[in-house]
Amino acid sequence: MSAALPAVPLTLEGASVLHQMFRFDWAAWRLISAEERAGILAEVTALLAPLEKATAGDHPAQSAVFAQLGHKGDLMLVHFRDSIAQLAAVERDLARTAFGSFLTAQHSYLSVVELGLYESSNKTYAALAEEGIEQYSEEWNRRLQEVIGRQSAAMSSRLFPAIPDAKYLCFYPMDRRRGEQLNWYTVSMTERQRMMHDHGMIGRRYAGEVRQIITGSIGYDDWEWGVDLFSDNQNIFKKLIYEMRFDEASALYALFGAFYVGVRLPVSELAAWLAVDTGK
Amino acid sequence: MSAALPAVPLTLEGASVLHQMFRFDWAAWRLISAEERAGILAEVTALLAPLEKATAGDHPAQSAVFAQLGHKGDLMLVHFRDSIAQLAAVERDLARTAFGSFLTAQHSYLSVVELGLYESSNKTYAALAEEGIEQYSEEWNRRLQEVIGRQSAAMSSRLFPAIPDAKYLCFYPMDRRRGEQLNWYTVSMTERQRMMHDHGMIGRRYAGEVRQIITGSIGYDDWEWGVDLFSDNQNIFKKLIYEMRFDEASALYALFGAFYVGVRLPVSELAAWLAVDTGK
Amino acid sequence: MSAALPAVPLTLEGASVLHQMFRFDWAAWRLISAEERAGILAEVTALLAPLEKATAGDHPAQSAVFAQLGHKGDLMLVHFRDSIAQLAAVERDLARTAFGSFLTAQHSYLSVVELGLYESSNKTYAALAEEGIEQYSEEWNRRLQEVIGRQSAAMSSRLFPAIPDAKYLCFYPMDRRRGEQLNWYTVSMTERQRMMHDHGMIGRRYAGEVRQIITGSIGYDDWEWGVDLFSDNQNIFKKLIYEMRFDEASALYALFGAFYVGVRLPVSELAAWLAVDTGK
Amino acid sequence: MSAALPAVPLTLEGASVLHQMFRFDWAAWRLISAEERAGILAEVTALLAPLEKATAGDHPAQSAVFAQLGHKGDLMLVHFRDSIAQLAAVERDLARTAFGSFLTAQHSYLSVVELGLYESSNKTYAALAEEGIEQYSEEWNRRLQEVIGRQSAAMSSRLFPAIPDAKYLCFYPMDRRRGEQLNWYTVSMTERQRMMHDHGMIGRRYAGEVRQIITGSIGYDDWEWGVDLFSDNQNIFKKLIYEMRFDEASALYALFGAFYVGVRLPVSELAAWLAVDTGK
Amino acid sequence: MSAALPAVPLTLEGASVLHQMFRFDWAAWRLISAEERAGILAEVTALLAPLEKATAGDHPAQSAVFAQLGHKGDLMLVHFRDSIAQLAAVERDLARTAFGSFLTAQHSYLSVVELGLYESSNKTYAALAEEGIEQYSEEWNRRLQEVIGRQSAAMSSRLFPAIPDAKYLCFYPMDRRRGEQLNWYTVSMTERQRMMHDHGMIGRRYAGEVRQIITGSIGYDDWEWGVDLFSDNQNIFKKLIYEMRFDEASALYALFGAFYVGVRLPVSELAAWLAVDTGK
Repeated sequence: MSAALPAVPLTLEGASVLHQMFRFDWAAWRLISAEERAGILAEVTALLAPLEKATAGDHPAQSAVFAQLGHKGDLMLVHFRDSIAQLAAVERDLARTAFGSFLTAQHSYLSVVELGLYESSNKTYAALAEEGIEQYSEEWNRRLQEVIGRQSAAMSSRLFPAIPDAKYLCFYPMDRRRGEQLNWYTVSMTERQRMMHDHGMIGRRYAGEVRQIITGSIGYDDWEWGVDLFSDNQNIFKKLIYEMRFDEASALYALFGAFYVGVRLPVSELAAWLAVDTGK
Repeated sequence: MSAALPAVPLTLEGASVLHQMFRFDWAAWRLISAEERAGILAEVTALLAPLEKATAGDHPAQSAVFAQLGHKGDLMLVHFRDSIAQLAAVERDLARTAFGSFLTAQHSYLSVVELGLYESSNKTYAALAEEGIEQYSEEWNRRLQEVIGRQSAAMSSRLFPAIPDAKYLCFYPMDRRRGEQLNWYTVSMTERQRMMHDHGMIGRRYAGEVRQIITGSIGYDDWEWGVDLFSDNQNIFKKLIYEMRFDEASALYALFGAFYVGVRLPVSELAAWLAVDTGK
Repeated sequence: MSAALPAVPLTLEGASVLHQMFRFDWAAWRLISAEERAGILAEVTALLAPLEKATAGDHPAQSAVFAQLGHKGDLMLVHFRDSIAQLAAVERDLARTAFGSFLTAQHSYLSVVELGLYESSNKTYAALAEEGIEQYSEEWNRRLQEVIGRQSAAMSSRLFPAIPDAKYLCFYPMDRRRGEQLNWYTVSMTERQRMMHDHGMIGRRYAGEVRQIITGSIGYDDWEWGVDLFSDNQNIFKKLIYEMRFDEASALYALFGAFYVGVRLPVSELAAWLAVDTGK
Repeated sequence: MSAALPAVPLTLEGASVLHQMFRFDWAAWRLISAEERAGILAEVTALLAPLEKATAGDHPAQSAVFAQLGHKGDLMLVHFRDSIAQLAAVERDLARTAFGSFLTAQHSYLSVVELGLYESSNKTYAALAEEGIEQYSEEWNRRLQEVIGRQSAAMSSRLFPAIPDAKYLCFYPMDRRRGEQLNWYTVSMTERQRMMHDHGMIGRRYAGEVRQIITGSIGYDDWEWGVDLFSDNQNIFKKLIYEMRFDEASALYALFGAFYVGVRLPVSELAAWLAVDTGK
Repeated sequence: MSAALPAVPLTLEGASVLHQMFRFDWAAWRLISAEERAGILAEVTALLAPLEKATAGDHPAQSAVFAQLGHKGDLMLVHFRDSIAQLAAVERDLARTAFGSFLTAQHSYLSVVELGLYESSNKTYAALAEEGIEQYSEEWNRRLQEVIGRQSAAMSSRLFPAIPDAKYLCFYPMDRRRGEQLNWYTVSMTERQRMMHDHGMIGRRYAGEVRQIITGSIGYDDWEWGVDLFSDNQNIFKKLIYEMRFDEASALYALFGAFYVGVRLPVSELAAWLAVDTGK
């Protein structure tokens, strides 16, 4: 009765992630005195510098700053935390600083680190069916929770990653197509598993040059997934995504949102980045 | 002549609901004195605290505040009332406070709690046809009004719910697809009833972990329905919606708008949330 | 040669209509003195109160104010006039008042009351063909102008209506679909006439509870038609539009824009609506 | 070898055209003194009044002002010039006046008066093929340039028109559809020529009541063409465009952008239009 | 086993390019004194004048200013640099000047000069297959890097171009269609190569009149490619793009974003362009 197996792959959830894209009000920044700017910088540095270091333990909490390109924002902040409530707290903590008054939110993205378990799911669903365990029964749920627990422990460092220490960040959201003719959510689990496997093989060839973090955002934001690519090689973003555009999963079923690119800005360099010469 | 039965399921209407998503002007808030902030907080607390408690009686009127994630807003207010006119009144009451001057509306959603009666409708339409009662005749209308009256009474607590007391809220609007090839509104009543039943079965499995309120917004706002999910478990939003994305009703016929996530902010904690240190 | 009959139904044009959706600047309103507010209210009341009453004669000129729900606006003004030039004049008259400085236009809609003559058109085209009168000849045009003139006189009160005196207004624009597969404008005149007739029958059943005014906006605004529904029963908007969504003309060929809902605000109640307590 | 004939019709280019849609800041206008307003009006009148008259010669340079309807703008300016560089100059000349500080650009459209030569193109391509002249050879290009030169001279007054002196303007941009199933750019030249001919016949029947100027905007703005309709009869816009919506070229292949409607505002009436009573 | 050859053409990457579209705040500019304006102009001229000249060496770094048409912006800056980090630096350098306080970013585009190697790729993939070198093996990668290295050296001046010295600029982004029926990324490499070749032939016929620079933006911005056309003949933009719209690659597979047009504004003419007469 394999036709009756669930179509939904199990997923593992890790860190909660918030991307914030801000415009910086250079005009207002120039209007205040050098002394005021110094005070504001000292306050925001005191807030951000500790956040920039991943906290110790299995679930590092960490925030990083990027100088963004173009009109989509001047400063992009990326926060990894243990919960959405903690993300709301850091968002508020920044907003209420004096520095926060120079920022205008242009965009943001809320998501949760996710690992899809196509292979384990298929195997487990089949095994449970073989054992004659009824779908969605307590026993069935218990057994799946065991799989999730085991895999979560095994993949803990990928579920709760530190923010990679690379020069460039490329972030974009994406959907699986739900068209009238091509619809990811009506493709069989086996077919999806095959396509995701092929898709993953491309990523693996780029693993040495780019670090990828996939977050799920169904229920959290306007696209289904977010993708963060970190690399010291700016051109690798284009090469990787272009090559993937031809694989079956992407060519037929991937829809992409806006792309956000930033250059890592260590908090220690924030003062230099914000330096202005107003002649006073 | 069952082919001639109406294609439109009866619906029950309950509370009128307004979601308001606001940006809070932190910069202006910092510019005023601590004394002024205290006065403004006192005024808005006096307005919101009583609204936070559901009024007694069958039709509770209630408002709740949420700290929102990201650029879509800082504060989300959700109001349940007996009529749209009452919603307009509470909207105005907040707007004219001093606190209202620090809020800018980013988004909103107007809808009415709705329960669709696929099963009763089909049965009743068939019964009336069997009895030979002419469609849309006075007698026919009277009989349907009886069904609506009975069901409304039976489901009163679901039609006029108190706002669930959970940590997280996830709100999103949705449509049924009206595509050139896939069109919910040309699917037979029987097929729609079957798909809605299957869809509902998924929700039921999550009932212990998430509280769902469906509102209808045809004629009120830009999508056809609104969905509010309340839960203490943030990841359940993703798991529930992801699983539903594979059921037939959703995979083929559901289109989703933006997603709005908030963390419940009791009015008693508003002052702490708004605390700023301006050194004066 | 009936295949060669024109595909375009004759239409009757009546009043020119402008919907204006404004945000009201409550923050600025609070900043001025009670005396200034009183003066501003007196000025705008003197402008709007006479406009609120329909002028005498066959072509009433009238404006009405609605308290709007949500972020789409705080105040919605609806103007019926004899020409677009008169609408431009009233728009300017309001903009230059002191009150106008507190309004920011969020949206608007320009259209003209329209009655489509599917039945008469078909009959007349056929009759003229039978008589052997050449299409688009002077005689042909003269005969059609006669039909238009007769019908315009007969329907004058529907073409130049007073604004219905109901508690709620629901306004939305709509298009007929021009898809690659489903295209209203390639459907035969006969088929369109049949669908419009069925569509109209639904409206008729709701006639006692809701008053509908259809305006054409091809050439005037971004959708093809505007629909104004006036009712004292807020839920009737949803019931009517939901039911219509299943009729063939709507299910296959209707596309809907944004929905705007307001509660009638008599000019005499404007002062109360705008009352603020600023402690000074 | 007629299959190998070019698919691209020759076009003639005339005046460069810029539409500017502005909001006028009535609030700021009321804040300054009557004396300042008078000075500002004198300056902008001195700029615009001469531009309102078409310059002498074959290539009139001319600008006109319209009072716009609704939130899309308060004032629409339409400029006809000999080049885009001249349009940039007039845009800057207005922006730097004191009056320009009260204007905020809401929209604009850049295009060039265009006449498509479907008939001549087809004939010429065929004739050159018959003569055995190689496509895209120097001789071939020279011969086409001759056709363009001759036709440009013959149609000079349509390529460089004065702005029609009508009460109303209706402007909208449009595209030819490039869908997955219906694609204007894959239709044969002959078919396109036939459809454009039929389309033109409708326009001709309205020629007495409306003046139409077509501009091409491929490479200049976000749609492929702009359409300006000038008429003293406001309802003719709707009648003409509605009728055209049924012709094959439009029904299947036309996509429309936003519609902008204005009432001609002679510069001599600008002062009256801008008159405010601020009690000082 | 040619079916197994990679579907992805090799690409060469050159200069990193940022387009910035700004509104200029004429109102604020008028409010300051002539002396202040002179100081601000001196500062920004000192920044931009050296950037306007291409630096010596193989990788010129250069920026150019254009007066933009319409509401999309008043000033467009185009920067060619060696890396995205350098683009971020020049963006910040401008933003922090006093002149930057008069600019508001309306739009921008981030991309990298790209040359697609359809022909070499196909040949090389085939040759490597013939030699029995395993795809994606170290040897395979090394051999492709050799091709890329050779071609990059040969095409260095096209990969790192100076900004053409023409009167007009037309910039637009574009995508290859990824539709449900027509999908560039599922077309065979051979077919794509053929279509790109035909497409290129059209461009070649216009080479004398227009200079084209193609940039790739997959991974950098919201469309897949950017196109810059430089010409002294404004009408050539329309003629070239219109003719291309009929070629197979464009007719079936090209989707276009917004179009941005500017007139070259040498930094030496910036002062004249910004001159205002405020009577003080």
